[in-house]
Amino acid sequence: MTRFPTLDRISGPSDMKGLSLGDLRRLADELREELIESVSKTGGHLGSSLGVVELTVALHALFDAPRDKIIWDVGHQCYPHKILTGRRDRMLTLRQKDGLSGFTKRAESDFDPFGAAHSSTSISAALGFAQGRELGMPVGDTVAVIGDGAITAGMAYEAMNHAGHLKTRMFVILNDNDMSIAPAVGALQASLNTLTGPLAAFRSLAEGMESALPGPMREGARRARALVSGLPGGGTLFEELGFDYVGPIDGHDMGQLMTTLRAVRARARGPVLIHCVTVKGKGYAPAERADDKYHGVAKFDVATGQQAKSKSNAPSYTSVFAERLATTAAKDPRIVAITAAMPGGTGLDVMASRFPKRVYDVGIAEQHGVTFAAGLAAAGMRPFCAIYSSFLQRGYDQIVHDVALQNLPVRFAIDRAGLVGQDGATHAGAFDVGFLANLPNMTVMAAGDEAELCHMIATAAAHDSGPIAFRYPRGEGLGVEMPQEGQVLEIGRGRVLRQGKDAALLSFGAHLGEVLKAADLLALEGIEVSVADARFAKPLDTALIDRLIDDHPSLVTVEQGSTGGFGALVLHHLAATGQLEKGRAIRTLTLPDRFIDQASPAEMYAEAGLTAADIANTVKLTLSRRKTGAIVRLA
Amino acid sequence: MTRFPTLDRISGPSDMKGLSLGDLRRLADELREELIESVSKTGGHLGSSLGVVELTVALHALFDAPRDKIIWDVGHQCYPHKILTGRRDRMLTLRQKDGLSGFTKRAESDFDPFGAAHSSTSISAALGFAQGRELGMPVGDTVAVIGDGAITAGMAYEAMNHAGHLKTRMFVILNDNDMSIAPAVGALQASLNTLTGPLAAFRSLAEGMESALPGPMREGARRARALVSGLPGGGTLFEELGFDYVGPIDGHDMGQLMTTLRAVRARARGPVLIHCVTVKGKGYAPAERADDKYHGVAKFDVATGQQAKSKSNAPSYTSVFAERLATTAAKDPRIVAITAAMPGGTGLDVMASRFPKRVYDVGIAEQHGVTFAAGLAAAGMRPFCAIYSSFLQRGYDQIVHDVALQNLPVRFAIDRAGLVGQDGATHAGAFDVGFLANLPNMTVMAAGDEAELCHMIATAAAHDSGPIAFRYPRGEGLGVEMPQEGQVLEIGRGRVLRQGKDAALLSFGAHLGEVLKAADLLALEGIEVSVADARFAKPLDTALIDRLIDDHPSLVTVEQGSTGGFGALVLHHLAATGQLEKGRAIRTLTLPDRFIDQASPAEMYAEAGLTAADIANTVKLTLSRRKTGAIVRLA
Repeated sequence: MTRFPTLDRISGPSDMKGLSLGDLRRLADELREELIESVSKTGGHLGSSLGVVELTVALHALFDAPRDKIIWDVGHQCYPHKILTGRRDRMLTLRQKDGLSGFTKRAESDFDPFGAAHSSTSISAALGFAQGRELGMPVGDTVAVIGDGAITAGMAYEAMNHAGHLKTRMFVILNDNDMSIAPAVGALQASLNTLTGPLAAFRSLAEGMESALPGPMREGARRARALVSGLPGGGTLFEELGFDYVGPIDGHDMGQLMTTLRAVRARARGPVLIHCVTVKGKGYAPAERADDKYHGVAKFDVATGQQAKSKSNAPSYTSVFAERLATTAAKDPRIVAITAAMPGGTGLDVMASRFPKRVYDVGIAEQHGVTFAAGLAAAGMRPFCAIYSSFLQRGYDQIVHDVALQNLPVRFAIDRAGLVGQDGATHAGAFDVGFLANLPNMTVMAAGDEAELCHMIATAAAHDSGPIAFRYPRGEGLGVEMPQEGQVLEIGRGRVLRQGKDAALLSFGAHLGEVLKAADLLALEGIEVSVADARFAKPLDTALIDRLIDDHPSLVTVEQGSTGGFGALVLHHLAATGQLEKGRAIRTLTLPDRFIDQASPAEMYAEAGLTAADIANTVKLTLSRRKTGAIVRLA
Repeated sequence: MTRFPTLDRISGPSDMKGLSLGDLRRLADELREELIESVSKTGGHLGSSLGVVELTVALHALFDAPRDKIIWDVGHQCYPHKILTGRRDRMLTLRQKDGLSGFTKRAESDFDPFGAAHSSTSISAALGFAQGRELGMPVGDTVAVIGDGAITAGMAYEAMNHAGHLKTRMFVILNDNDMSIAPAVGALQASLNTLTGPLAAFRSLAEGMESALPGPMREGARRARALVSGLPGGGTLFEELGFDYVGPIDGHDMGQLMTTLRAVRARARGPVLIHCVTVKGKGYAPAERADDKYHGVAKFDVATGQQAKSKSNAPSYTSVFAERLATTAAKDPRIVAITAAMPGGTGLDVMASRFPKRVYDVGIAEQHGVTFAAGLAAAGMRPFCAIYSSFLQRGYDQIVHDVALQNLPVRFAIDRAGLVGQDGATHAGAFDVGFLANLPNMTVMAAGDEAELCHMIATAAAHDSGPIAFRYPRGEGLGVEMPQEGQVLEIGRGRVLRQGKDAALLSFGAHLGEVLKAADLLALEGIEVSVADARFAKPLDTALIDRLIDDHPSLVTVEQGSTGGFGALVLHHLAATGQLEKGRAIRTLTLPDRFIDQASPAEMYAEAGLTAADIANTVKLTLSRRKTGAIVRLA
């Protein structure tokens, strides 16, 4: 006897066509159970996936993927979708090396027409597919499923504005999991079956049903409507943007879902927004009870919901930033902080608990966040703009145009620099050194360890003459001794950690631990290298670099970032000052010219060729080539 | 007798306090006349400045700049503001070297609290100032003046969303110049003087007045309201975002302006949007009659409005792109094009006139535009995303996350690469090579001349294996012979234009003409250099580079862009392959590490140290240092 008799019969969405409502409900129940069990063994984004189990089943029962394009915004809620689209047997490889991605991914399945991980892209992509269809491409319907957080981003607004203007048939499903109004809208469903008129009539009937509900339920429906409409009885934001609006419906009621989706699918001519209310963590009591609804979980025990604790040897960089910024802010009332919907992830919740008026959560709005910080700086405040490296890409023009060009002292605290592990290539902080340090007026630091991070927070706080950024990685520090108080570093001054005559290693940022290990490996073979921590990619410590060049036959730079960043600036400097004529052997170790899929950070850096052994080998290569032309590799 | 008796008495906004309504009207009239005369001699953004003459006078009469922060979105409508804030005597230097900027600029005046040039940043900045005030900074009121185009950008939406959430007192003036409804709202003004209640009552009275208007006028007011509100009687978008909404008012009626602004200033507690209807080009008949309302003009004759024609010797890069893309699209129905509110500037209007359904103007929405293009590519289309270099910064994360990561064949046509002249530092296309060529999967080209641009359009059209970008500058080509049809270039293959033994010049992009001139200068002194056009920054033509290194004692790269771009990638390659050990003299000429103010492009490149003489001197420097250690300079 299988525990999953319905799910076992589904090898893909085609097996779901024509299933009875009862079967679909059973399928959803089994899917949920499978999902919980699976994620309990791998960890992952459980809460959001639990919230869309019924919606996923309904979409695949009704629409014809992959011809119809179902696009999950962010994509972290796609686990049920993966299970139903041929990836069930690989779910235990989720977010691991060579396993399934934690997000949708074109390379992984035809059922993932547009991958994601950053938020608010789905409507733009769905509109692109829809226009492709209008121009003759073999595309069916397009459906974007987007959360109530993601839809507030400017980019989603831009996309809806354009879709409303083009009047292209497409579906946006607003997955609204901020309120539990399921009972209130439950009574709606019965009447939906009887609808035959055009969509407008459909909508007004839905409204009629709402007013016929008993008092408390009606109130819930009203609250849901108020979410999208400032005025009772007024049009919704979506209608102003040119969308037909349908809802709110109960996203866990299979009957409502099927009836509504069937109706809009049959009748829609232009863009339609379906307001679907769901519960994050739905159907798993520990998740529903938890504050974060098991948004992202470690492995856990299904019976108790108890998550495995990770052992930590040293404080995480994030927690160091969180504590030290709050301490610094306590002494300086001009310090304020900005996060784009990541108070917990960035650690700004710590400062917010002490100084709630001085921490701004602008929502998923990096463009606004950066310029808002610039405005605060122009007003005389000392803003810390704390945005992950890969999300900061969303505010790039604002960094150039509003911050760097005006030389305003915004402090960029850049967490998740370098490779980040399970979230994979989309979340890698690979490009920030390049996109920041090549801007005039910018000062760019990277922390070699967690004590350095303390100094850099102090340095940034004191730096009023222009913008300054400091980057640090996800995860634990090296376990070094922590300073009582961060020191203000001299701008553009690195430090030498170890002296050796045979070669020089110049590290920028948190790969310093690996660089020191490489020096140890080399010492075992009798090769004595100098190790320096540049601290600054801009301004460069040119005196330090010149000394390293003068005193060593070779120089290897190491950074957790792409080409065009620290190493490039070192090379530009050496070229401009005529030092390349000295013929030194120089290597710039960076992330390679390819995106690196999820794995542990250590595995990802191994894949990137940036282990201590790789670094040591590079040093040996520069030395051996100088002497013999041959290549020597460490065993 | 002075022609400007009222204006002459104004040396700054403090002289405007307490002026009678009659005086303010006279001031506005004189200001308009002065403005027309001044811009007739310099050229510039006339139409938008004419539209805000009365608004500018009213704002400075009522608010206390510089303590109150008046922030002009985009800033191209700020000429009246400049005249009134102490810069009248420098207006004839507008947009010229060492003259006044064509936009607001912090470095230029205390009355410019936040500079601009890119659109839609003003609300974020104003909110930053307002929060600074709440936290004790010496800031008064904050006023953002934003056009009906700029306010549709996602960034403006994000800012309003945040302002509505914070409920901070601030003013957003929507300068709505898309419709001429001035007479319709004229009758409103009389009653505004009598208002005494809170703002909500003020607003409903305004609405009441509207309904009491005679039929045709009422219709105009309704149309204005419909602009911001989908449903008659419904709330406006702004109200849904938490703003109080006042308007529409006639932005050329000084009485209405003063009364309304005085009322909201006295009573506002939270964010207020004042919907102000203006006429672009107002008060100058040739401008009002013109299709573009004299948005940007050359020098012109005041009496006739006749603009000076610029002599052109060669076709502009933009016109080459426009014509060739349309021709290419005629042969390939999969080609579509995307512009972000710049159909004329990018030249896509040419294709649009032939294939209106295949050109998308997404509005000021670069984030959406890039991902929409990615969706079209995923659907099988061949999208050309035509966005100026500096505006493409707005879509950077979408390029990384949606295009490069998914390896989707979006074609980026990047106009205004390099220094652009009168629009100055904000519009410089300085960073695109760096921010694109360091991304995995990207192919990046730059056109050495206008014939090369033809080939690159053909190459991009044929390139289905991943994203590809090609950059080209503002202005005319070199006058080279044009190919009948563009050829598909071999990816990653440059070309050698001239052979010489003494040194190698490797050009990337449109500085090729200057590089060839440098070679000529050197030849006059008996120095024979090879000249190569790299064509590709990515993938590099490594065989070509290696040959240049092997065959010449020195190599100088030249590009119209910042560090971290083409030159950096050449250096990374030489380092990685051990070729720096050869001790060749290498220089990477790039834009310098500072923002360069407006001037002619030639003057700007001179300021940047990138003239033919600079390039030749650099070559000589590499040669002389190798021989003698001394530095030789061309006279």
